[in-house]
Amino acid sequence: MNLRPYIRDILDFPSEGIVFKDITPLLKDPEAIRQAVDALIDLIGNQEIDIVVGIESRGFFFGPLLAARLNAGFVPARKPGKLPAKKISVTYELEYGTDTLEIHKDALQVGDKVLIHDDVLATGGTAKATCELVEQLGGEIVQCNFLMVLDFLKGVEKLKGYEIRSLINY
Amino acid sequence: MNLRPYIRDILDFPSEGIVFKDITPLLKDPEAIRQAVDALIDLIGNQEIDIVVGIESRGFFFGPLLAARLNAGFVPARKPGKLPAKKISVTYELEYGTDTLEIHKDALQVGDKVLIHDDVLATGGTAKATCELVEQLGGEIVQCNFLMVLDFLKGVEKLKGYEIRSLINY
Repeated sequence: MNLRPYIRDILDFPSEGIVFKDITPLLKDPEAIRQAVDALIDLIGNQEIDIVVGIESRGFFFGPLLAARLNAGFVPARKPGKLPAKKISVTYELEYGTDTLEIHKDALQVGDKVLIHDDVLATGGTAKATCELVEQLGGEIVQCNFLMVLDFLKGVEKLKGYEIRSLINY
Repeated sequence: MNLRPYIRDILDFPSEGIVFKDITPLLKDPEAIRQAVDALIDLIGNQEIDIVVGIESRGFFFGPLLAARLNAGFVPARKPGKLPAKKISVTYELEYGTDTLEIHKDALQVGDKVLIHDDVLATGGTAKATCELVEQLGGEIVQCNFLMVLDFLKGVEKLKGYEIRSLINY
């Protein structure tokens, strides 16, 4: 199944000159959800996964679906102030300013094999911060997978050394 | 399976005097996820569901899992500024101030049978706003279901006329 027709371009969102890849048409179609989950699972092959880490917020849509299929746990990496228990944080550079991601301290056990998931890999700042959070807790990153990679933003270069997989490249 | 041991109390979060119900221990346990999904599906019985609407952000964890099991589509109800396409919004009262939720205009077709899902029903303001969004688009609300209802906040009263179900009552 070709998932591209289920991802629509929204011009000038969130700001002028940006073309936003909107996955809500995909989410609205149960067959497209199923095919996307199957394809994301295929990317992992027979590698063992203990924990799927999904990145707020759009990584929460498929993260738990992947965890359920892999018989793994799900852990959210969240924006500041959202996680209620003891946590660690990583602050990373944006084009203008900085952003922060957090994860619960007890989210992982040392040696846990981790799949990191988000809907889209853009510049890679968020994914890189998530890798750092997972590694600070002693997790072993097996793969970072995405519905889409925006090749022209070179996020894969920022994630050198990690296995990066996606269903669609733009 | 008793899910209560997988939900932990965090004192004074997000502010002093509040006891926050944290579901991250449940999400981290694949068997608990499976049992929660099974039990939420049981709440629906054999009622037909076309679309599951999950409320940002914690309604995104189980919403797509429920949609996949029901062979339904998934639609996110989001905080302002997050949805990229044409949308409608509802603003509702909080104890101090107001909040707003949005949904895409093309999220539903008139007559779609809708399950609304969130992790917790507290005062009911967010769930009520989501009901209004769904009905403005012509959706028919079959049930609102939650992992937890905080009975003392009387959210069920605010949702009078809707079928409200949950796995755990506090």
